[in-house]
Amino acid sequence: MTSNAPEKLWQKGYTLHPLVERYEAGEAALDTRLVEADVLGSIAHARMLGRIGLLTGEEVAALGRELARIAGLAAAGQFAVTPADEDVHTKIENHLSATVGEAGKKIHTARSRNDQVLVDLRLFTRDELLKIEGLVLDAVAALGELAERGQDVPMPGYTHMQRAMLSSVGVWAGAYAEALMDDLQVLQTAYAINDQSPLGSAASYGVPFAIDRQYVADQLGFAKVQRNVLYAQHGRGKFEGLVVQALAQVMVDLSKLAQDIVLFTTSEYDFFAVAPELCTGSSIMPQKHNLGAMELVRGRAHTVLGYQATILGIVAGLPSGYNMDNQETKRPFIAALDTTAETLQVCALFVAGLTPKEDNLRAACSPELFATDAAYAMVREGVPFRDAYRQVAASLADLPPMDPVEQLRNRTHLGASGNLGLDDLRAQVEQERAALTERQRRIARVKEGLLTVE
Amino acid sequence: MTSNAPEKLWQKGYTLHPLVERYEAGEAALDTRLVEADVLGSIAHARMLGRIGLLTGEEVAALGRELARIAGLAAAGQFAVTPADEDVHTKIENHLSATVGEAGKKIHTARSRNDQVLVDLRLFTRDELLKIEGLVLDAVAALGELAERGQDVPMPGYTHMQRAMLSSVGVWAGAYAEALMDDLQVLQTAYAINDQSPLGSAASYGVPFAIDRQYVADQLGFAKVQRNVLYAQHGRGKFEGLVVQALAQVMVDLSKLAQDIVLFTTSEYDFFAVAPELCTGSSIMPQKHNLGAMELVRGRAHTVLGYQATILGIVAGLPSGYNMDNQETKRPFIAALDTTAETLQVCALFVAGLTPKEDNLRAACSPELFATDAAYAMVREGVPFRDAYRQVAASLADLPPMDPVEQLRNRTHLGASGNLGLDDLRAQVEQERAALTERQRRIARVKEGLLTVE
Amino acid sequence: MTSNAPEKLWQKGYTLHPLVERYEAGEAALDTRLVEADVLGSIAHARMLGRIGLLTGEEVAALGRELARIAGLAAAGQFAVTPADEDVHTKIENHLSATVGEAGKKIHTARSRNDQVLVDLRLFTRDELLKIEGLVLDAVAALGELAERGQDVPMPGYTHMQRAMLSSVGVWAGAYAEALMDDLQVLQTAYAINDQSPLGSAASYGVPFAIDRQYVADQLGFAKVQRNVLYAQHGRGKFEGLVVQALAQVMVDLSKLAQDIVLFTTSEYDFFAVAPELCTGSSIMPQKHNLGAMELVRGRAHTVLGYQATILGIVAGLPSGYNMDNQETKRPFIAALDTTAETLQVCALFVAGLTPKEDNLRAACSPELFATDAAYAMVREGVPFRDAYRQVAASLADLPPMDPVEQLRNRTHLGASGNLGLDDLRAQVEQERAALTERQRRIARVKEGLLTVE
Amino acid sequence: MTSNAPEKLWQKGYTLHPLVERYEAGEAALDTRLVEADVLGSIAHARMLGRIGLLTGEEVAALGRELARIAGLAAAGQFAVTPADEDVHTKIENHLSATVGEAGKKIHTARSRNDQVLVDLRLFTRDELLKIEGLVLDAVAALGELAERGQDVPMPGYTHMQRAMLSSVGVWAGAYAEALMDDLQVLQTAYAINDQSPLGSAASYGVPFAIDRQYVADQLGFAKVQRNVLYAQHGRGKFEGLVVQALAQVMVDLSKLAQDIVLFTTSEYDFFAVAPELCTGSSIMPQKHNLGAMELVRGRAHTVLGYQATILGIVAGLPSGYNMDNQETKRPFIAALDTTAETLQVCALFVAGLTPKEDNLRAACSPELFATDAAYAMVREGVPFRDAYRQVAASLADLPPMDPVEQLRNRTHLGASGNLGLDDLRAQVEQERAALTERQRRIARVKEGLLTVE
Repeated sequence: MTSNAPEKLWQKGYTLHPLVERYEAGEAALDTRLVEADVLGSIAHARMLGRIGLLTGEEVAALGRELARIAGLAAAGQFAVTPADEDVHTKIENHLSATVGEAGKKIHTARSRNDQVLVDLRLFTRDELLKIEGLVLDAVAALGELAERGQDVPMPGYTHMQRAMLSSVGVWAGAYAEALMDDLQVLQTAYAINDQSPLGSAASYGVPFAIDRQYVADQLGFAKVQRNVLYAQHGRGKFEGLVVQALAQVMVDLSKLAQDIVLFTTSEYDFFAVAPELCTGSSIMPQKHNLGAMELVRGRAHTVLGYQATILGIVAGLPSGYNMDNQETKRPFIAALDTTAETLQVCALFVAGLTPKEDNLRAACSPELFATDAAYAMVREGVPFRDAYRQVAASLADLPPMDPVEQLRNRTHLGASGNLGLDDLRAQVEQERAALTERQRRIARVKEGLLTVE
Repeated sequence: MTSNAPEKLWQKGYTLHPLVERYEAGEAALDTRLVEADVLGSIAHARMLGRIGLLTGEEVAALGRELARIAGLAAAGQFAVTPADEDVHTKIENHLSATVGEAGKKIHTARSRNDQVLVDLRLFTRDELLKIEGLVLDAVAALGELAERGQDVPMPGYTHMQRAMLSSVGVWAGAYAEALMDDLQVLQTAYAINDQSPLGSAASYGVPFAIDRQYVADQLGFAKVQRNVLYAQHGRGKFEGLVVQALAQVMVDLSKLAQDIVLFTTSEYDFFAVAPELCTGSSIMPQKHNLGAMELVRGRAHTVLGYQATILGIVAGLPSGYNMDNQETKRPFIAALDTTAETLQVCALFVAGLTPKEDNLRAACSPELFATDAAYAMVREGVPFRDAYRQVAASLADLPPMDPVEQLRNRTHLGASGNLGLDDLRAQVEQERAALTERQRRIARVKEGLLTVE
Repeated sequence: MTSNAPEKLWQKGYTLHPLVERYEAGEAALDTRLVEADVLGSIAHARMLGRIGLLTGEEVAALGRELARIAGLAAAGQFAVTPADEDVHTKIENHLSATVGEAGKKIHTARSRNDQVLVDLRLFTRDELLKIEGLVLDAVAALGELAERGQDVPMPGYTHMQRAMLSSVGVWAGAYAEALMDDLQVLQTAYAINDQSPLGSAASYGVPFAIDRQYVADQLGFAKVQRNVLYAQHGRGKFEGLVVQALAQVMVDLSKLAQDIVLFTTSEYDFFAVAPELCTGSSIMPQKHNLGAMELVRGRAHTVLGYQATILGIVAGLPSGYNMDNQETKRPFIAALDTTAETLQVCALFVAGLTPKEDNLRAACSPELFATDAAYAMVREGVPFRDAYRQVAASLADLPPMDPVEQLRNRTHLGASGNLGLDDLRAQVEQERAALTERQRRIARVKEGLLTVE
Repeated sequence: MTSNAPEKLWQKGYTLHPLVERYEAGEAALDTRLVEADVLGSIAHARMLGRIGLLTGEEVAALGRELARIAGLAAAGQFAVTPADEDVHTKIENHLSATVGEAGKKIHTARSRNDQVLVDLRLFTRDELLKIEGLVLDAVAALGELAERGQDVPMPGYTHMQRAMLSSVGVWAGAYAEALMDDLQVLQTAYAINDQSPLGSAASYGVPFAIDRQYVADQLGFAKVQRNVLYAQHGRGKFEGLVVQALAQVMVDLSKLAQDIVLFTTSEYDFFAVAPELCTGSSIMPQKHNLGAMELVRGRAHTVLGYQATILGIVAGLPSGYNMDNQETKRPFIAALDTTAETLQVCALFVAGLTPKEDNLRAACSPELFATDAAYAMVREGVPFRDAYRQVAASLADLPPMDPVEQLRNRTHLGASGNLGLDDLRAQVEQERAALTERQRRIARVKEGLLTVE
């Protein structure tokens, strides 16, 4: 570390071995993404310190102005954390000490980098989860539209990857739409648990000041204070794990969808045309149109599962209080958020870019798909199902021809091809979208309230 | 397979290779645990078939009586599924065909083993999650009591496993109590998503009968129908994964608690006495009193994380519709439920069996714990925190003595040692317990309604 | 624990809480599988104690006779460990104390259950790995035979699951054969590292007796002593992890093979007929012939990956010396061995039961497969490849017809369809089989030497 | 994509959607690390094309000169792959086409990016594994030195984290040294399996040219050709998984070492002084000296385990032939190599920076450590061990005092404190180091042979 490097907050007269320094260094690029959150948390903390008399009103105002300025710089891409800064907290505190003077040196009163990074990650996660909820709704909408287009388009229904019974493009697309709607609920639980203010936990054990944690929580728009100070600290890693578990549900669903899309666009199935701008070629085989992105979705599900394993594996068995192992959860956590967000966008794009090849789909609805229907026809005439099953199995070659579209419409019970409930789905999406917009607006107002310089 | 073996539902005139039969065989012991659920699902399905005219009232009644009898036998441990039975569904259908005749052969109308196992697992999961929620509340109560006993018992607070700041037994125990309360919320989301009726999905594509899925759902006490028939099928594995993710949160928290207990009862820490009936000895070292169970808790967290990896890994990238890979999720799923339930019980027992060794704890509160307090005392006199920090760091040896209990009470902000909010915690536990009891009663009434022979 | 229960080795006057006892109990069924190994280790240990004068010749002989008798009972299925026995070591020591008297009480001198279970697992693993190596060679042989049958059978070669270039059944089957040959090497490394004698490590720190560890290792046929006593202990979990990593390689290869088999037997591909005794049906769809076993292979790869995660996750971060967490690795370890062994057998059976449908395969070799060949034909006439590529891409519809078998034979370079090197493969298999047989014979002689009562 | 962007190798007249392009983009920084390998593979391939008459001698020479120039630029940090380049292969081929003309367009004859990336990764892995083997030996040497320094320094030996028996700093450090020596063997197997030349596999199915794969393998210094062309392709992901499994063994061992170091430097144990330049402080607690790097080692073990899960999870169940999922293994693979290399360095540094606090260590050797010794003393006088055990257990308070150093020297059997075999260990390290140096020299000669412009 050269003598010009910014000083570490804990520096006390000896030099850290460069190998250790490099090994312990967080990734500056990740910290750059936390600048806005660190600013917001710092403003709320400063206001609270003012409220309990540890800062003067003037100091609070000066800090607020400078912090708002930093937020502006960050939004313009002009406040990047570099490896020499150690981390976002140190960079900002050093900046404040340099620009605001004494007040800058006081802002760390009654907090620690431990609760600072906690609050940064909570605020960051709040924004990211809202964005991802929006992308989930976009993907559901795209799937819902495909389901509508494909409601009367017959398609073999597979079990064991073998043709089993009649299905439709509508059934197929609708299944993924509903899965994502359930995932939304899981994401919302992760959001709710993340929505607790950790500030005041300090280095895990609180501080001997009468700080007002509820005030800070309110300023930052958190639903509540995360009470026990040690538990606030234990949230590090745990909450990341919870969020990534929710993302894993999304990724696993999308990986199944991607597998289907890859499969159903092979020469052998050839059920869908794909918009050419979604396909890539081969460096050696001139005829290829590959769905590389869909293959990557399959692969990236395992990337996110690996992140889930890493984060929870790190936390398991850790003794109480902050341990630096927690720092190692930051990269997989943020990568999981990014990967899931991009994957949702790419999948929505592919779903919108699929065109059912109706002739192929209809041709694939070969007679054996109707074997159960034939057995059921006998049931309707009073033959016990198990006997009908055996008779049909013995005379598969003689199954009568059936019209697939008629049969599709025939399945009228709730959730079947003739009664998919797509109107309900659309209504649900709209309702969730409205609620999401309202939550996003509330957060925007909270930020504005903090960044507005009085 | 001997000629006396019960017939497979799908048997059609050739003999399965014994190696393949063994490889595909589910574990009979697991299926035995699903008997009650299979019975309940079958009664509801039969009633619905009666309602839409596919069974006569008499047939419904006869099936209901026999199924209730099976439930009784199962409860008495007299209806075990054996490997020769293939699975619980086949055993019960074969039993019904043998005892009730034609109606027995008709009960499989409009359903498949695919939606049957789905409904079995949903009903089973419902019971198990309610049980686990109860055990979580028990563990929280035990931790809350320890926190109360230890509210004024000083204890070093650690960061990086090094003595950092003053803490208390109350802070320490309370942290785990609050973590488990958040886990309860995660478990409840898993419960809510599991609480959807899949019956009517059949082999994933519905049936060409006007079945009444809502009626079945109501009979079984489900919150709603899982609409899209293919999505109902996709729930297999996905829902198990979701539940195990929630269990993983519990296990990870408990593994940290266990790590602390093992650590804090070593000779070096010696903070707690442990009830001797919780300890085991060594075959070679006569002096040992080991906390083997707590070590196993640490280990079993990774067992459950492994199950989580297996289940989600299986589901990722599977093509749509039922695939037999799903069967492979049953064992880790049930094992994860069992492991978590037992671990909760054992941890509650250990928490209740801990007695703080107050003298040791107080002695461990060495002067450096109060370094931050000393810095804060200077802050109160107007020194900027960062300057106070550096001054204290330079004179660590001269820190003034402080009374730890006084300091504990001194930290009065929300969630700190002097203001843990244990009354609120107790109130929350009671409220959750009451709500849980109400849910359990409702389920009991649902079962009674199904098993009551008219 | 009733007063009649066999005594625990470490019992010292208080009763273990039944919940803790149950939680800590190993699985008796797993321990039953270790009886032979425990007997062998005990005989070698007793002989060594005799050699250094801690047992008399008579005592050694009496112990040897009784231990050999136990091995005989175990081989006949008459020496099962039950939950009341605590574990295999206690059961055998209690048995010896009861039947051989004083000598039975002396056999535990200079060892601990910690190094006893280590040696048991090493001996057990040695047998299991040899068995699995044999099964790998069987599977390679089956794949080699299929490759030979299919050497001239054209088949589309896929990339991105799209038809890419001409391939053959021979290329396809041969690829998996060679993968398994590499896995054999990985298994052999795991075998070599496992082949170290841990006895004498005792409870991790050796004993104050001049025991002869090399003599014990020689008696048991180990390649060497695992020297450092604490490292011997650290082998627990680590070696299990190493073995399961090797098994994971096998399972991942087989899961790809299984995926191909499932895919290539769908209606859409229909490249292979499968022997009917390998297929199962559906309870609702009379026409189905499912390859359930192959789907389970896919799923079970993730089961073994989950075991790998569990075992290594348990070991990571454990402090040195024995910790009971290690016990939790026994079940996934043994399950991984069993699963892999069965999966190898099932896969070999399926490979032998595949019959290429030559007409379908040939029909699937559609013209675009030869696009690269067309480009290469232009290259041979001097057109730079990248230009030829672009020209062919622009005129895909006009590709000249090619004879696939001729083209297959045309690819004569090493490893291509016309030069698969199957003779070399067969020779390698035979050589490995001979070496394996020799190793197995050596182990058999070691066992015989130990079990022979003088 | 702007019109100025370099052309994609497979570009055929439509524009890829920017979202898909971004989603499919590899990480340019990773590809930059493959430049040298891509150059070497290309030179060998060009020479082979020359040998079989597809390139003229002049073309080969021109390509070789330009490729060597690229290697020089890369070594000087002046040939970075950027996102616009698509990947390292495209960048180099475009560069060659621009600088060498026709020959540049011909170099892709008889290969595909699929076997190109395979060979790049094999060459890269070869270098990385050799580097890591060297770092393993460095760490073993550091541990061996500490073991020597600590041979006569008593230290409690722990089981279940409780004081169990007498041990020494020598035993403790030596255990980790031997573990790493076993890991070396695992790494060498991964190296051996990686040491196969994939070139000629092309897009997985070979090429209709009489290419000379053995010649290419020899040029590149590979031990052999990876024969079956499809298996060569299947190595992607599989080999990465194998290497990461080996790295995981190293990381798991180091995480245990790190856990011990963190534990043994707490106030409660205080067994070692740590060089201050290895420790970091706290932003809030002036007294703290944290071993953050050791905590990160614990955490990073789970990072590498997560990478292992991701890579093997991606490969499991993939259908045969290249799939783009494989691309997703590159990042975790390279990250695992980097993380393990750095962790080895940091651990060696910490081991060298540990100074045993002999007084504390000796004081921690409390009387109960000698309980087994007392029982053994009775055994020497003829009391059966089990009886002696019970007598000692009953009179733990009356154990006679023992001299720990004398007792340490007393344990003279192989691998115990008095006979650690450190000379043998040192000799083994030297032998391995010499062999490693020889392998590295051979590789250097291979590279020189390829990069030398004739």
